[in-house]
Amino acid sequence: MMNRSYVFYILGKLIKVLGVLLIVPVLVGLLYRNSVTVLTSFVAAILICELAGWLMSRKEPDNKEFYAHEGLVLAALAWFVLPLFGAIPFLMSGAISNPIDAYFESVSGFTTTGASVLSSTMHALPESLLFWRSFTLLIGGMGMLVFIIHIIPNFGAKSVYIMRAELPGPVFGKVESRVSSSIKILYFIYLSMTLILALLIYLGGVPFFESLLLSMGAAATGGFNIHPDSIGFYNSTYLEILLSVAMFIFGMSFDFFYLIFVGKLKQVLKSEELKWYVSIVIISTALITINIFPVYGNLTGALKDAFFSVSSISSTTAYTNVKFDAWPPSSYIILLFLMFVGGMSGSTASGLKVVRVSVFIKSIRQEIRRMISPQRVLPITYDNKQLETPILRSINFYLASYMGVFFVVLLLVSFDTQSFSWAFNAVISSLSNIGVSLDLLGPGGEYAALSGFSKILLSITMIMGRLEIYPVLILLSRSTWKR
Amino acid sequence: MMNRSYVFYILGKLIKVLGVLLIVPVLVGLLYRNSVTVLTSFVAAILICELAGWLMSRKEPDNKEFYAHEGLVLAALAWFVLPLFGAIPFLMSGAISNPIDAYFESVSGFTTTGASVLSSTMHALPESLLFWRSFTLLIGGMGMLVFIIHIIPNFGAKSVYIMRAELPGPVFGKVESRVSSSIKILYFIYLSMTLILALLIYLGGVPFFESLLLSMGAAATGGFNIHPDSIGFYNSTYLEILLSVAMFIFGMSFDFFYLIFVGKLKQVLKSEELKWYVSIVIISTALITINIFPVYGNLTGALKDAFFSVSSISSTTAYTNVKFDAWPPSSYIILLFLMFVGGMSGSTASGLKVVRVSVFIKSIRQEIRRMISPQRVLPITYDNKQLETPILRSINFYLASYMGVFFVVLLLVSFDTQSFSWAFNAVISSLSNIGVSLDLLGPGGEYAALSGFSKILLSITMIMGRLEIYPVLILLSRSTWKR
Repeated sequence: MMNRSYVFYILGKLIKVLGVLLIVPVLVGLLYRNSVTVLTSFVAAILICELAGWLMSRKEPDNKEFYAHEGLVLAALAWFVLPLFGAIPFLMSGAISNPIDAYFESVSGFTTTGASVLSSTMHALPESLLFWRSFTLLIGGMGMLVFIIHIIPNFGAKSVYIMRAELPGPVFGKVESRVSSSIKILYFIYLSMTLILALLIYLGGVPFFESLLLSMGAAATGGFNIHPDSIGFYNSTYLEILLSVAMFIFGMSFDFFYLIFVGKLKQVLKSEELKWYVSIVIISTALITINIFPVYGNLTGALKDAFFSVSSISSTTAYTNVKFDAWPPSSYIILLFLMFVGGMSGSTASGLKVVRVSVFIKSIRQEIRRMISPQRVLPITYDNKQLETPILRSINFYLASYMGVFFVVLLLVSFDTQSFSWAFNAVISSLSNIGVSLDLLGPGGEYAALSGFSKILLSITMIMGRLEIYPVLILLSRSTWKR
Repeated sequence: MMNRSYVFYILGKLIKVLGVLLIVPVLVGLLYRNSVTVLTSFVAAILICELAGWLMSRKEPDNKEFYAHEGLVLAALAWFVLPLFGAIPFLMSGAISNPIDAYFESVSGFTTTGASVLSSTMHALPESLLFWRSFTLLIGGMGMLVFIIHIIPNFGAKSVYIMRAELPGPVFGKVESRVSSSIKILYFIYLSMTLILALLIYLGGVPFFESLLLSMGAAATGGFNIHPDSIGFYNSTYLEILLSVAMFIFGMSFDFFYLIFVGKLKQVLKSEELKWYVSIVIISTALITINIFPVYGNLTGALKDAFFSVSSISSTTAYTNVKFDAWPPSSYIILLFLMFVGGMSGSTASGLKVVRVSVFIKSIRQEIRRMISPQRVLPITYDNKQLETPILRSINFYLASYMGVFFVVLLLVSFDTQSFSWAFNAVISSLSNIGVSLDLLGPGGEYAALSGFSKILLSITMIMGRLEIYPVLILLSRSTWKR
């Protein structure tokens, strides 16, 4: 029996918080003298949030039992429901006329995906809406921090089934982070890093407003584009290198930032997942550089673009600085591999996560040893700690589930398009919360052109990717709702 | 420590058997009055086999210890080495001038894949070579019977790591099949079924020689083509329906045939894997029929072609009766899904196997239940028997390994081609031992055009797919060969 009333109570509180956050774009709109229609749409959204939130959280339930089941259902509900409210300004201002499109755009923001139905018209949006779009990325990213810190570790052993890669090591366990003060510190670090990045972008000659949008996109590994040709628009090597490094950093676990903040850099450097992440980025960059070198004819250019793309895809940000048409298929396959892998656990990057993929690689080696001499099998270790069987099992299971979801959604979306390649790109971009499809497989398409059915399906897929699939399945399962 | 000398001793015996089997194409060559060059090449191959086999098995080793490790290494060695000898007639007769091409063609036969470097010139081959090519399919299929019956179950619990889906149920365990008499019975059933099918094909108006080739291709789920447009060449609805049904049947577990032979049909009908297999075929056929109906405009034609393709791909035979150019992408994705799934365990079909995929689907449901109420989780059952954790773990692990091998080979092959779609098709066709690529994803290519590196890589991939990956990794692992 799920404690339904308490879940709805907290959801109401969250909606009220969202209403408060909606004040920020209003300030932006006032600053840039956006039209009254636009400002009104935000004010309306605020009022709707506060009213709905108040109705839902009016009376605190007596029963405050809140276990794994409640936590997972709340997370899934939040990522389904908050974008409904977040979509109001898009819709009421007339910027997006179709409600499904507005919801898709909003989900894409809250899940830090960055896929857009507005790809060719986005620079014509009023500043407050442009800001709101990128701000939802940041809200989604900060929401993930709460999810990772509050919902996951509080359930002890059960959490294995949520963050299926919850491993011993620096993932929050050690850093006295289970209290909400640590969330405040992390918010402070996160927002500071975002502002510092914005400043550095600004120093590269980008207007401050756009710097802020780009920075929020990178910090949340979401990467909504402001210009149709993304970062290529600025034609700035400084900006490309800056963002490459920034995206690479934001693909890392958040607790690293915390550890560095409290002066424990050494502990960060010992992380095994970090070593794998860095190795994957270096090897992929090297391979792509070699592969595209004949096209470029100059090593620095090839290296720069290879690193940018690898960093952008690994972190699931998906800013782009080049057209990929001329790249050979091997580079595409490397990027495709990175799309599935994604970033580190405990980051806002999605995908399978580096920790799972690396544990899986280690277990292949162990499996071969087991078959050769079954009596002498050493346990798999990670960060020098032995991995228990349930964790290994859940990791393999998650890898297979990911492929399963990918296939099912691919099939359903394909009914809506004449192009296999476009469906393939769109589905992996949604599932790994990457957003922009690379179009390397063939001519890309616009999300806007998809049917309502596909847009809703891809919205669900984005939320599945964001919450690691299972919370969504639990939300949709019958036994969650039967009395 | 592997018992190397005994493994080589048995390998020598197998090579001698291959020499004897090479007499059959000589008889075919004499019957069809093939040139002396061709006949000589077969005789030379026989002599080389007998000589090499005699040298290797001259002295029976004293140490006859033969455990899992030896069995797996032997299987992998056999599938690497026997095709070397099987390639001799192709090469010496001049039918295939490049040694790597000849090896590729031979591996494709022994692994029951049916991929060919001869796709446009195959009908110009002398009868003895055409026969030999299809006969290697049958030899490979019969070899699988030995592998399934002799090598796998003899190792008890260890076998979990080989046929990772070794499940309770009718898979040989019950049918007193662990003695070699059961192999003889199975060979008898298998060869009888092949001959009956050949006869039925012949009754449809196909020349007897071609009937025999087609029948061997279907029985071994290999499907070497005799004509560039495969079954489409005959333009016969009778043949298409006959082969659809035949391929569907040969995608089933071999022990079903045994059970039916001994009058235990009821036991077959109770098999849970069979229910899944039939459901997958019916659902896929229905979906594709609906999907291609607008293209065809008539239901019977759409249904016939849908069933043919589903049956052909599910069984990993890959005979084709239509050009797929006009089919919509959704049909392709369904077929792609079937390419990964493959046939039933205990058949000559490859792929992930129906049993693994269905257990995986069941465990997703269980996983959701576990997250909702961890204290009340029922164990997963299959054929009304509870599945132990190591089996579940190994199934998930195999699913993930399969995807891993797929990705790595895809990346390596892609360096050799300008077309992602062609690489994608070639790799899944090799890994699941399907053979002919469907070209639905984009324009296909000829295997012949690939580099030597890719051909060797795809040969290894075919053997990996045939032996369920791990025997090959064990063969290639250092600890197998260190003293």
